[in-house]
Amino acid sequence: MELNEITRILIDFRDRRDWKKYHTPKNLAISAAVEVGELLEIFQWKSDEEIVRLLESEEYRERIGEEISDVMIYLLTLAHECRIDIERAILSKIEKNERKYPVK
Amino acid sequence: MELNEITRILIDFRDRRDWKKYHTPKNLAISAAVEVGELLEIFQWKSDEEIVRLLESEEYRERIGEEISDVMIYLLTLAHECRIDIERAILSKIEKNERKYPVK
Amino acid sequence: MELNEITRILIDFRDRRDWKKYHTPKNLAISAAVEVGELLEIFQWKSDEEIVRLLESEEYRERIGEEISDVMIYLLTLAHECRIDIERAILSKIEKNERKYPVK
Amino acid sequence: MELNEITRILIDFRDRRDWKKYHTPKNLAISAAVEVGELLEIFQWKSDEEIVRLLESEEYRERIGEEISDVMIYLLTLAHECRIDIERAILSKIEKNERKYPVK
Repeated sequence: MELNEITRILIDFRDRRDWKKYHTPKNLAISAAVEVGELLEIFQWKSDEEIVRLLESEEYRERIGEEISDVMIYLLTLAHECRIDIERAILSKIEKNERKYPVK
Repeated sequence: MELNEITRILIDFRDRRDWKKYHTPKNLAISAAVEVGELLEIFQWKSDEEIVRLLESEEYRERIGEEISDVMIYLLTLAHECRIDIERAILSKIEKNERKYPVK
Repeated sequence: MELNEITRILIDFRDRRDWKKYHTPKNLAISAAVEVGELLEIFQWKSDEEIVRLLESEEYRERIGEEISDVMIYLLTLAHECRIDIERAILSKIEKNERKYPVK
Repeated sequence: MELNEITRILIDFRDRRDWKKYHTPKNLAISAAVEVGELLEIFQWKSDEEIVRLLESEEYRERIGEEISDVMIYLLTLAHECRIDIERAILSKIEKNERKYPVK
């Protein structure tokens, strides 16, 4: 699915609940930070080796997928509220990184 | 662009630089948290009204777009390393939210 | 109570449970970030005015106090593990800020 | 030094600069999160073994001490603005943890 189509689904979900009034950029950035904290919590106290083992479990992968999604949902909404074309922003950031870190 | 296509570009960028060895799930989640901190910094000490005014400036919007992209780049790489279909995860999270918060 | 005395209580608590093995600097910094996420969550979606009202409630203040404590507990343990005299570090940071932001 | 004395120094520093107007609980929690991001950045991409080696350097320890201090300065100011006795809150949290995790 196109990234911009996912954003359209999110904004439609949001607007049907009349939640736009809460969605200031500051509130959305706070929410992304709250969810990144929950994502980090999944890896808290675990070694890289334990995480590799845990990733065998579909339940563990689903938990991670859900937390990543929570962060992404807030980021896509934030981009929308700031009138940012996030697909273009990501591609332009990758290009910038290409120049910054040339392949040897 | 398809979300999974963006991931493919990122992983290709990463592999040509031989950076996979650094990309443990724990390290990628830490990096997402570092970048979310930089995103929050853009709104630090500013009121919602000031942010609305600042958003008139293309430069300010570009700064936000770059920080959102940095977080998303790490999240997409993390999802890939955890063998998570992030598009499916996001759509399934939206469906879950539809059931949790029914439109009145 | 002296800050260093609080640290001594924390390390004693930790060592009696044999948890030092988990307390690498990286794990402790992750834990501080997880707890800061929970602290932010208390203010999520709330306006400054609502927070002022909520602060009238002792229960709300206690919730905030508990989350701040969780972050501080990890920070003090992290400082200890890194052999940092945190009292000296804070006072030296305040002095640095005094020079950086002179009173007009 | 007493924890509450450190808070007094911070509030005095702050009030002589007339910065109280920026210090809403929400802004202070955001600032703590921004600084925790900078703390995490010090450990980004590094293994536990590399960090042990880096900790031999006084400069590295000082960098960590400065970032921990930045977070603590915002947390102490936040506790003050919320009328929380942070020393009591920390000791009461340790007692709670004593009951939650009894020594076997």
